[in-house]
Amino acid sequence: MDMETLLVDSRGLEQVESVLANSFARSKARAATLGPTYHHLWETLETCAAGGKRFRPRMVMTAYDCLAGTDRASAAMVAASFEMLHTALIVHDDVIDRDFVRRGIPNVSGTYRLLAEDAGLAPDDAAHRGLSMGVIAGDLALSSAHRLLDGVRTDPATRERLGELLDDAVFASAAGELLDVDASTSDTSSSEETLQMARLKTAVYSFESPLKAGAVLAGADEAIVDSLGDFGRDVGIAYQLADDILGVFGDEKTTGKTTWGDLREGKRTALISFVAQRAEWEQISALVGSPELSAAGAEKIRGVLRSCGALDYVVSLAGDHALQAQHHLGAAHIPAALRDGLAPVATAVLARVR
Amino acid sequence: MDMETLLVDSRGLEQVESVLANSFARSKARAATLGPTYHHLWETLETCAAGGKRFRPRMVMTAYDCLAGTDRASAAMVAASFEMLHTALIVHDDVIDRDFVRRGIPNVSGTYRLLAEDAGLAPDDAAHRGLSMGVIAGDLALSSAHRLLDGVRTDPATRERLGELLDDAVFASAAGELLDVDASTSDTSSSEETLQMARLKTAVYSFESPLKAGAVLAGADEAIVDSLGDFGRDVGIAYQLADDILGVFGDEKTTGKTTWGDLREGKRTALISFVAQRAEWEQISALVGSPELSAAGAEKIRGVLRSCGALDYVVSLAGDHALQAQHHLGAAHIPAALRDGLAPVATAVLARVR
Repeated sequence: MDMETLLVDSRGLEQVESVLANSFARSKARAATLGPTYHHLWETLETCAAGGKRFRPRMVMTAYDCLAGTDRASAAMVAASFEMLHTALIVHDDVIDRDFVRRGIPNVSGTYRLLAEDAGLAPDDAAHRGLSMGVIAGDLALSSAHRLLDGVRTDPATRERLGELLDDAVFASAAGELLDVDASTSDTSSSEETLQMARLKTAVYSFESPLKAGAVLAGADEAIVDSLGDFGRDVGIAYQLADDILGVFGDEKTTGKTTWGDLREGKRTALISFVAQRAEWEQISALVGSPELSAAGAEKIRGVLRSCGALDYVVSLAGDHALQAQHHLGAAHIPAALRDGLAPVATAVLARVR
Repeated sequence: MDMETLLVDSRGLEQVESVLANSFARSKARAATLGPTYHHLWETLETCAAGGKRFRPRMVMTAYDCLAGTDRASAAMVAASFEMLHTALIVHDDVIDRDFVRRGIPNVSGTYRLLAEDAGLAPDDAAHRGLSMGVIAGDLALSSAHRLLDGVRTDPATRERLGELLDDAVFASAAGELLDVDASTSDTSSSEETLQMARLKTAVYSFESPLKAGAVLAGADEAIVDSLGDFGRDVGIAYQLADDILGVFGDEKTTGKTTWGDLREGKRTALISFVAQRAEWEQISALVGSPELSAAGAEKIRGVLRSCGALDYVVSLAGDHALQAQHHLGAAHIPAALRDGLAPVATAVLARVR
């Protein structure tokens, strides 16, 4: 998921960068003592982590700052922890999807597949070598995410809550990945299943947990923490629905993604779940997920998604969730600074679908 | 690696079992709220974790008890954390080795490959589905290992040390896995490389870190913690060398493993590293790693390993490391109870190679 259209200003991002840089520097120096190949793996992982927009750190830092947290160095550790988790999840997600490229350049698995091909391995073995390195690299990032929390200066109860929130994120993401793997071979999935998948794969680890973690570290009341969780869930679902729409109807120049990739892949988005339960499905079921899908075929699918009401339905569903998210921020117990700090997130998501 | 011939009596193992059972029960209950397939994944992971001999918990509990630790419930959390790490590592190791069976029954990947085949997936896709589920399950176990440490009641400095020791174990195991993946396509690896791989893949996470963690939690002096690390390193290397020997020359009835599996797989054991640097290598290089290796071929390899001195060399190397391990326990600052508690480990390893 690419969040460049959803950047929220937040202070302290340089501190997050320096926590991440220090963490990688320590690991690389340590890895170098065990040999150049291990050092290279850490370098490759760092390159993969460097391309991101630091969206999850922005959520942590915004919540923390707007709730008047005063130890920004500790908040930066929490933020870096969620960024490291993001890195682990995308590296392993690419292994599961057998993707060897991300953002136009070879990812961890792609880097090692190329090296293995250069070393003369057969294509299948080179691909498996690449995926194996992805498994190892993702494990290192996941473990680093947990380790970064150990650097937070706080009381034991808060430390426990932070560990719980990171664990919530891992737990939900694994469930989302599992549903995704399952959905790729089932012909239909209900609307609720699609929403649940959006929540599990995106909302929890990208919005809910980082926002709650920033609030918990700032010592916020439970009511505020809970509201941030509600806000994160709804805005995260809205974000994912908008992403589903843009993946099929977006402007390639703006999104940087083709508008037939999701269709060719047969991705079970909210749009497809809607049409799959209607009579119109038989007009396009052979096209969705076809590796030979043409531009004309994609246009035909778009036409059906429009005429059967799928597009309108998902646009309005996304809008509902974004409005619901704004509503959570309107509660009386939410400080004005926090409301002001996060309103742009819901607004940006709303703007994406309109 | 199977450690059933190396069981050390240790108190508190029932407590470790109950920590593990509680941890899985909580995760399963939570997963059930997200759907039956997620619950099933946790069940499958638990089954995989249930087959072990709890060797790493034994190391933690023995060090803790022999150093007069008094909070066995916390020690059991640390012990369970290392067991969970072990589960994560074997699940991901099987993904990397494309193994679908462990201890004679389908492992996590094997279980899901079978389900995918039953659902009608093509063999390649079913295998990839199985491996994907292995990636997800291993991530959950790795994260659980970190989470279990959060349940330890101790001061922040000790908590930090425990996190560091778990991280050391992850860091070393990843390096060992990486060297292993690399070695599988290089024709030779030096004796030092083989020893380093044994240390990284086995000694650190199975011996050094669990022993040191038990000592740190018991509040032991740094000198004792360091000596336990030295002991763990040497006994761990001796153990791995013994394992290499038994994998080729052992009694199948005792080890429960065939004596041609390692040879057919072309595993870069200490035996093979030794012969690969000598003229005799050309007599057997085509046989080692051949999927068609016959009983007669395996016997020919064994003959060459004997005649070129590889067997004698590795037996004596293992013996040296086991003796060195005993020597570390002899230091004046090691309490007698600890010496007595751990001596059987070195003795059992020595007995394996003689």
